[in-house]
Amino acid sequence: MFSFRNDYSELCHENILKKLAENNHAQFDGYSDDVASKRVISQLKTILDNQDVDIHFLSGGTQTNLVAISTILKPYQGVIAADTGHIATHETGAIEATGHKVITVKAENGKIKPYMIKSVIDEHYSDDSREHATQPAMVYISNPTELGTVYTRDELADLKTICKAYDIPLYMDGARLAQVLANKDTNISLKDLPNLCDLFYIGGTKNGALFGECLVISNENYKKDFRYNLKQRGALLAKGFSISLQYEALFEDDLYIKLGAKSNKNAKYIADELKKLNIKFLVPVESNQLFPILDNKLIEKLRKEYLFYTWQIIDENNSAVRLCISWDTPNEIVKKFIEDVKKYI
Amino acid sequence: MFSFRNDYSELCHENILKKLAENNHAQFDGYSDDVASKRVISQLKTILDNQDVDIHFLSGGTQTNLVAISTILKPYQGVIAADTGHIATHETGAIEATGHKVITVKAENGKIKPYMIKSVIDEHYSDDSREHATQPAMVYISNPTELGTVYTRDELADLKTICKAYDIPLYMDGARLAQVLANKDTNISLKDLPNLCDLFYIGGTKNGALFGECLVISNENYKKDFRYNLKQRGALLAKGFSISLQYEALFEDDLYIKLGAKSNKNAKYIADELKKLNIKFLVPVESNQLFPILDNKLIEKLRKEYLFYTWQIIDENNSAVRLCISWDTPNEIVKKFIEDVKKYI
Amino acid sequence: MFSFRNDYSELCHENILKKLAENNHAQFDGYSDDVASKRVISQLKTILDNQDVDIHFLSGGTQTNLVAISTILKPYQGVIAADTGHIATHETGAIEATGHKVITVKAENGKIKPYMIKSVIDEHYSDDSREHATQPAMVYISNPTELGTVYTRDELADLKTICKAYDIPLYMDGARLAQVLANKDTNISLKDLPNLCDLFYIGGTKNGALFGECLVISNENYKKDFRYNLKQRGALLAKGFSISLQYEALFEDDLYIKLGAKSNKNAKYIADELKKLNIKFLVPVESNQLFPILDNKLIEKLRKEYLFYTWQIIDENNSAVRLCISWDTPNEIVKKFIEDVKKYI
Amino acid sequence: MFSFRNDYSELCHENILKKLAENNHAQFDGYSDDVASKRVISQLKTILDNQDVDIHFLSGGTQTNLVAISTILKPYQGVIAADTGHIATHETGAIEATGHKVITVKAENGKIKPYMIKSVIDEHYSDDSREHATQPAMVYISNPTELGTVYTRDELADLKTICKAYDIPLYMDGARLAQVLANKDTNISLKDLPNLCDLFYIGGTKNGALFGECLVISNENYKKDFRYNLKQRGALLAKGFSISLQYEALFEDDLYIKLGAKSNKNAKYIADELKKLNIKFLVPVESNQLFPILDNKLIEKLRKEYLFYTWQIIDENNSAVRLCISWDTPNEIVKKFIEDVKKYI
Repeated sequence: MFSFRNDYSELCHENILKKLAENNHAQFDGYSDDVASKRVISQLKTILDNQDVDIHFLSGGTQTNLVAISTILKPYQGVIAADTGHIATHETGAIEATGHKVITVKAENGKIKPYMIKSVIDEHYSDDSREHATQPAMVYISNPTELGTVYTRDELADLKTICKAYDIPLYMDGARLAQVLANKDTNISLKDLPNLCDLFYIGGTKNGALFGECLVISNENYKKDFRYNLKQRGALLAKGFSISLQYEALFEDDLYIKLGAKSNKNAKYIADELKKLNIKFLVPVESNQLFPILDNKLIEKLRKEYLFYTWQIIDENNSAVRLCISWDTPNEIVKKFIEDVKKYI
Repeated sequence: MFSFRNDYSELCHENILKKLAENNHAQFDGYSDDVASKRVISQLKTILDNQDVDIHFLSGGTQTNLVAISTILKPYQGVIAADTGHIATHETGAIEATGHKVITVKAENGKIKPYMIKSVIDEHYSDDSREHATQPAMVYISNPTELGTVYTRDELADLKTICKAYDIPLYMDGARLAQVLANKDTNISLKDLPNLCDLFYIGGTKNGALFGECLVISNENYKKDFRYNLKQRGALLAKGFSISLQYEALFEDDLYIKLGAKSNKNAKYIADELKKLNIKFLVPVESNQLFPILDNKLIEKLRKEYLFYTWQIIDENNSAVRLCISWDTPNEIVKKFIEDVKKYI
Repeated sequence: MFSFRNDYSELCHENILKKLAENNHAQFDGYSDDVASKRVISQLKTILDNQDVDIHFLSGGTQTNLVAISTILKPYQGVIAADTGHIATHETGAIEATGHKVITVKAENGKIKPYMIKSVIDEHYSDDSREHATQPAMVYISNPTELGTVYTRDELADLKTICKAYDIPLYMDGARLAQVLANKDTNISLKDLPNLCDLFYIGGTKNGALFGECLVISNENYKKDFRYNLKQRGALLAKGFSISLQYEALFEDDLYIKLGAKSNKNAKYIADELKKLNIKFLVPVESNQLFPILDNKLIEKLRKEYLFYTWQIIDENNSAVRLCISWDTPNEIVKKFIEDVKKYI
Repeated sequence: MFSFRNDYSELCHENILKKLAENNHAQFDGYSDDVASKRVISQLKTILDNQDVDIHFLSGGTQTNLVAISTILKPYQGVIAADTGHIATHETGAIEATGHKVITVKAENGKIKPYMIKSVIDEHYSDDSREHATQPAMVYISNPTELGTVYTRDELADLKTICKAYDIPLYMDGARLAQVLANKDTNISLKDLPNLCDLFYIGGTKNGALFGECLVISNENYKKDFRYNLKQRGALLAKGFSISLQYEALFEDDLYIKLGAKSNKNAKYIADELKKLNIKFLVPVESNQLFPILDNKLIEKLRKEYLFYTWQIIDENNSAVRLCISWDTPNEIVKKFIEDVKKYI
């Protein structure tokens, strides 16, 4: 039985354990104030081509989102997100628990467009009694989106432009950022991101780390006293070095992007082969998640050997399923999967 | 330079990395719903001699405290804690950020006594206008305390009795629980704890884990829907198995208690030797933290080779310092430290 | 210039000021613990035909909603509401500020139907990973709705039945409850409400009081320690008697329902007359708010003598406007308004 | 039976009811955006001799405190208050419910001194790991204090100076501000206050209003979007004019200060007479609250005719009681009270 359920099903890349072993029994200061974390932050600043960003290490994605968003918003402000966005649907009201409304817009293939932001904000301020509604005050996107689609560099730039026009920040959830960076069609490299976003995170958990996310703050307004926020939300790990050392391993020899590329490639292989079989997709395949629309009988047969989620019922006979390809998914497995589809179809 | 600053300065015990390596490339379900986590939970229930407890894995201590406390309290309720308690002093208002007051009592050597609880609650309910003040509704202790002192089994039982009399739960922060279990004077074993506390956690970060804490809920009232709370606060790790596997290693062959015993023993060695030199202590030495009162000139000399915190200024010439002995502190270092003290005194 | 903008444009009914004057210079205990409040509560219990309800006086509607809802929900729970509901659209995220998501359903003419509740809850619990989303745990309705439509007794009973089946409470915002009680088609009297709702409020501000709302709690689970919640949210007025005395006036000689009937009648008069002129309405007219769809040129002319809000643009030439008829709107004004419409049309 | 329990036991001054009656049946816009509120705000700006302040009307003291404080603080910041302060002791954790710690200092006769503020802040920032504790970021005082003592103009100026040095705002709770203004020893007039405080409120509830408080914001930083905060916390009354009209009455012909002076004078009369009888006081009598230390037998006898609170047990035979003199307390009553004391002593 092989699982296509998640890209966080396996512990971590070999180099991570190797890096930890090499540094074992050394002594480090607590709370990310140690030499290893400082070294890794310095390396990341070089990779980001920006010496002014602030960099923090957190333990998971929901935590990173809630700390980042609650840092920025005033009590009566809310964050604009896609109706399919992770903070709107899959974080148990984590943002609301910090006191803020998630203001949803109907997304297209999981993506927010500038006109949607404009519409929400214009409507808010056109109202006579604006203080009677939550003030829209930042934009949350994830790249790739919940549906595996990606924003290109131009699309990000357009979002940033509209945000800037309204003087609100753009925050990008990069839980699967590796797949964006590895997809050349996006034309995005890490060094573009501090200019395109006010804050974003470089996801570790879903791309080979044991655990951990790396938050980058480029907007000067949100840097001050950020460690207070981290500590208050339980996000300032005593052994910060246990995360930063993993990032050192992930960014040696481009490992981070290579792992993203591998999962993208295997996803594309499956997509291309399924298309040859005239199988349609719910949304375009642009990263490591695919949503093919399959005959329910085929699904039933595949389930005997593969684990995956049903995403959406399409009609009486067909459903869209989600296949999530991991950095660790062997090439042979994706080949076997296609052979099995051909066999069962 | 050797650091006595913390017991979380080193990555982790060898067995942890070994356990992770052994399990690498296996596939696990997400969010602690995997076979490894289930197996470890089953082992821990046996060790706790209680099949009814619920067990959850979290990433750090502040997170565990804030999730546990916010689970229990209604909006207008507060938690009673020592004025020196971690949640009162060193968590940046994490409890208040979930909406609740920390009601402090003046502790004795870091410890809360039953009469203090009685006094706070009686005073609250004797008032004509009780709804004008925060309702005291649970008790937080840490064992060992912030000052390294420990509650014995009898003392815990007395706290539990008074809590039960008032129908409020007792929650124990066990960040350094290994040192309590390893201190035979406490007469506490793990299997006592589900009866003595309504919730408690078995700390990993400070006793050899890479990161992670293990929360045990024995009171039936607080079990339902607890995973919602975990998720909402960013505490439900996608790779829950990355923590549970560490606990498997920690509880094989009594490693957890052995590491606690080692740090206790080294702390006791230093304490005994310093006492021979007529050095006094701020509070009795009962676990792996010591607070000797040293001459400032001696402190200055020791700082050339050792890192440690000044805890409290005693008088013009003397200060209490904190020495925190780790599970990984070599025996040779504590011997050398005593030799250096003798040399410099 | 006459304003049809709101039903809270005039200070209060004469009897309110009379009642206050009669009781001036008497001494009352603070925080609603006085003889007047006790007497009024006793009268209201008789009117509600229920000696077991708890009754509290608050200063406004948003306050009442946020106190009631935050009393009931656990941190990870949310409240189901119409997408047009007041708490979803016009309270500046007041519910989110207490930590809770408002889970919206697409309403029909402003009303929630049992199947909508069923759908939200079934979907939540059918999901494998339910703890990844906010748990739907209570239902908020307002009667009349934001669009002036009303729930009948049978409709309320159906909502209560589905809530009971899922073991979640039904809370009714009665800011304009007088208009429901005065509309005989609803078949609702005050004494039905403790059985039909777990909590509800009898609105004062919009029906002749100077200010104030009266919350009734019939579900035993939410009564305990409710005054703590009131105090914490700034809703326990020092001079509670300044509200309860107003309710005494409002419920003498059926004044409350008479005022509701008067505004309903004037609204119906306008509706009937406009229908004769072939004017359509956005939603059926069932209480004191009307949403006629008018030609923009007519709107322009009417604005010279009347104040009212444009509610929705229908097409290039027509808009729905909102006319809100107050308890204090003179009969002559509504007649004059119709004459003016006839003149300008 | 006469009550000395509170200064909010009586409905309101005649002029308030008169003012309301005069304005009845007029139409006003909602949410304090009406002509009456604008007129009163303009009058108050003239009285405050400051055209730049923002003025808002709220319904009660706890509400005003929680809105003002939660407006200013970032999530990880706390407010410094006297350990006897209202927000620390008598508001059911209202500030904590908005997410913020109340950082208490041991007050002298209810008053905070500049050195206390300095000490809290210096200690916070001297710590290596300041982000591990709540950041002290504003100062709350009430004038008069909970013990009826008053801050003079010089004392306020000193507090403001230290706050300014640390770049944090000073907020003054003026629930009983009339008594400060009426006490010439304070040398404070209303027009001093915008310079001495960043925010303060002019209390109505305890000085003759039916209900209501008036918040003045002089610091530019806290003005923007304040109405959003009001609305979100349930503090933006639909009929804002029901409060502002009361303030119009209170500030006509100096009524506000006259009422304060009357209660001060009656309090002073009692104090002077009791002193002649060698009765001691818990703290100096400086406003309308007195805390005489009386023999328990005398207390028992007085309780047959007067209601008042026991404040503190002094020894086996004596207790400090609180007498609170209202704007409406008749002169004859205070005379009779003294006669009764003389009779019973």
